[in-house]
Amino acid sequence: MLAAFAAGSCIAGVLTRSATAAAPVLWCRKVLPGGRARALVVNAGNANAFTGAVGERAVAATAVAAAAAIGCAPGEVLVASTGVIGEPLPVDNITAAIAGLAINVPGVATARAADFHAAATAITTTDTFAKGATATAAIAGTQVNINGIAKGSGMVAPDMATMLAFVFTDAAIAPAALRSCLRAAVDESFHCITVDGDTSTSDTVLLAATGAAGNRKVAGAAALGDFRRALNKVCTDLAVQVVRDGEGAAKLIRVEISGARSDASARRAALAVANSPLVKTAIAGGDANWGRVVMALGKSGEALVARRMRIQIGGVTVAERGARAANYGKRAEAAVTRHLAGREVTLSAHLGAGRGRARVWTCDLTHGYIRINADYRT
Amino acid sequence: MLAAFAAGSCIAGVLTRSATAAAPVLWCRKVLPGGRARALVVNAGNANAFTGAVGERAVAATAVAAAAAIGCAPGEVLVASTGVIGEPLPVDNITAAIAGLAINVPGVATARAADFHAAATAITTTDTFAKGATATAAIAGTQVNINGIAKGSGMVAPDMATMLAFVFTDAAIAPAALRSCLRAAVDESFHCITVDGDTSTSDTVLLAATGAAGNRKVAGAAALGDFRRALNKVCTDLAVQVVRDGEGAAKLIRVEISGARSDASARRAALAVANSPLVKTAIAGGDANWGRVVMALGKSGEALVARRMRIQIGGVTVAERGARAANYGKRAEAAVTRHLAGREVTLSAHLGAGRGRARVWTCDLTHGYIRINADYRT
Repeated sequence: MLAAFAAGSCIAGVLTRSATAAAPVLWCRKVLPGGRARALVVNAGNANAFTGAVGERAVAATAVAAAAAIGCAPGEVLVASTGVIGEPLPVDNITAAIAGLAINVPGVATARAADFHAAATAITTTDTFAKGATATAAIAGTQVNINGIAKGSGMVAPDMATMLAFVFTDAAIAPAALRSCLRAAVDESFHCITVDGDTSTSDTVLLAATGAAGNRKVAGAAALGDFRRALNKVCTDLAVQVVRDGEGAAKLIRVEISGARSDASARRAALAVANSPLVKTAIAGGDANWGRVVMALGKSGEALVARRMRIQIGGVTVAERGARAANYGKRAEAAVTRHLAGREVTLSAHLGAGRGRARVWTCDLTHGYIRINADYRT
Repeated sequence: MLAAFAAGSCIAGVLTRSATAAAPVLWCRKVLPGGRARALVVNAGNANAFTGAVGERAVAATAVAAAAAIGCAPGEVLVASTGVIGEPLPVDNITAAIAGLAINVPGVATARAADFHAAATAITTTDTFAKGATATAAIAGTQVNINGIAKGSGMVAPDMATMLAFVFTDAAIAPAALRSCLRAAVDESFHCITVDGDTSTSDTVLLAATGAAGNRKVAGAAALGDFRRALNKVCTDLAVQVVRDGEGAAKLIRVEISGARSDASARRAALAVANSPLVKTAIAGGDANWGRVVMALGKSGEALVARRMRIQIGGVTVAERGARAANYGKRAEAAVTRHLAGREVTLSAHLGAGRGRARVWTCDLTHGYIRINADYRT
């Protein structure tokens, strides 16, 4: 996948914090501080990770080829790769294809829905559907557009930019303000999802702003309230799509924590629930086994006061004051079981220890995850 | 399961650190500091966890019934429960059965192999086999015996005493020395295993010393070298049995880390590998996808120097100096694939960052885990 940005476009990014980050991530770490980019090249199937100096040369060759085709400097080309770790990247296949791609590529400012769909499809691996989201916002009276694409769908864990997501806007926004907008949006979206608690070596989220909308370039935060709201919406939409298409997932699970000591504590507790294999398999089986939520909160290490805790599934209170709810009988359990039979499940817990809140998304853990991952590479 | 200890027996224990610990764990926390015990009552099927004041009364009723049957104080009775969380314990079933059990119970000092096997069987839930281990040691010239039983097999995570394990010895050892021996043994055994990264609300490891062997009671550490070695062996044997019988497990996986900044760092890195669903599913599928080990080490947050790293599977070097090993070709991959087809898999990684070492055990993640846990309670 090749995306071309008009001259003068600004770029911001959030990259994996993995200590074994892939070669394209190391490249992006060098390019992003400049805040300028003219092209993005993405391949799927090979992550070019743990490939040493050979891998770094492959990224440079990709950037040189794209720069020649687009007419820019190699340092204005971003690269992202996703797929198998540790295999040498057959980079000649990429460099040979770039010139042909460059002839046909519409600048992102003129790309249509079909183009974004094709781009989203090109970057998939085990994804079962192409992921896109769109929104508009007003900046000082000018309408701007935001279009994003993303891929999942395993090796997805929070606390880093998760997997690949690329968001394009025709707004004119200077690099520092763009970075601030992206950081905030990622914290609310990609940092709040988990499929399997495993973190990719290739995680990359980029936001490119071409300026084609014609608003006066924004450098401060004052005029960006509506843009931030729209960007958060696009990123959250994409993040939830990634979870909904988690490997083998049949259900989308929303975990809501309140009453934690702090928002950060709430997020850690929510992730302990969202990453628990026993919670995720119970939901896969449609089993109202809320004791596993208790277990996951207990192991999280976060402050809680058992006798003040409350747990709800699909809005039904299953436990309160440190034990099964007094009126949680056969009828209430049947309501919970009906909720769990659906495609969207909500687990809520109040920890009784403060006012911290968080919500994260995950998916159930099914035979499909095992099937996909026990035989992915071979 | 009821175990009776001779008058004068000493006890040590390690309990879950879960913030939602079960009622029997709360009870044991009060009894253990005294260092004395006469009886142990264990039930399987209901964990008596998150059951509030009703649950605490159920434990007290169990202790009172056992104390009456054995002829001791309730404060000399230890209780452990394992099973579903959040359901009220039908304690009358237990108190009604205790008198009959007490008539038949052999003191642990006179129990035979068949008795330990029956006890190990009584405490199983999803375990597929009863777990026991035995060893002898010399204390100041007197031979003493150590017999242990344990149960798994899901909700097994390290960093706490894991699941239920009960070790009995006829040695005479004072409480403080007994605690020191048990702490050290648990650190090397139960704290080094993981099945699913989920931590039970009921984890309990107890070590009872009856003194029937007739050695002069030991209060210091000097005479206990051989006993410690034998105890470590019994605990490690039991811990590995728990992992080998992990829910749905087909393979036992040993993860060895060297070259970490410290032993503690090595252990965290090893657990990141051992808890990675992607590593565990690759091994389930017999897939030599060593890139997932790279991913897990990268996400662990532990110090590593990629260009000095080395990864081996079954003794075959698959990666070194930050990339695929130069001589890792079709023949070497075939050797790794043969190793992965076996029942025991060894993954080794050198992090190139120091001299820290650790080894942990886990199991593969299979369809069996999903099958067992998507429909456990109902």
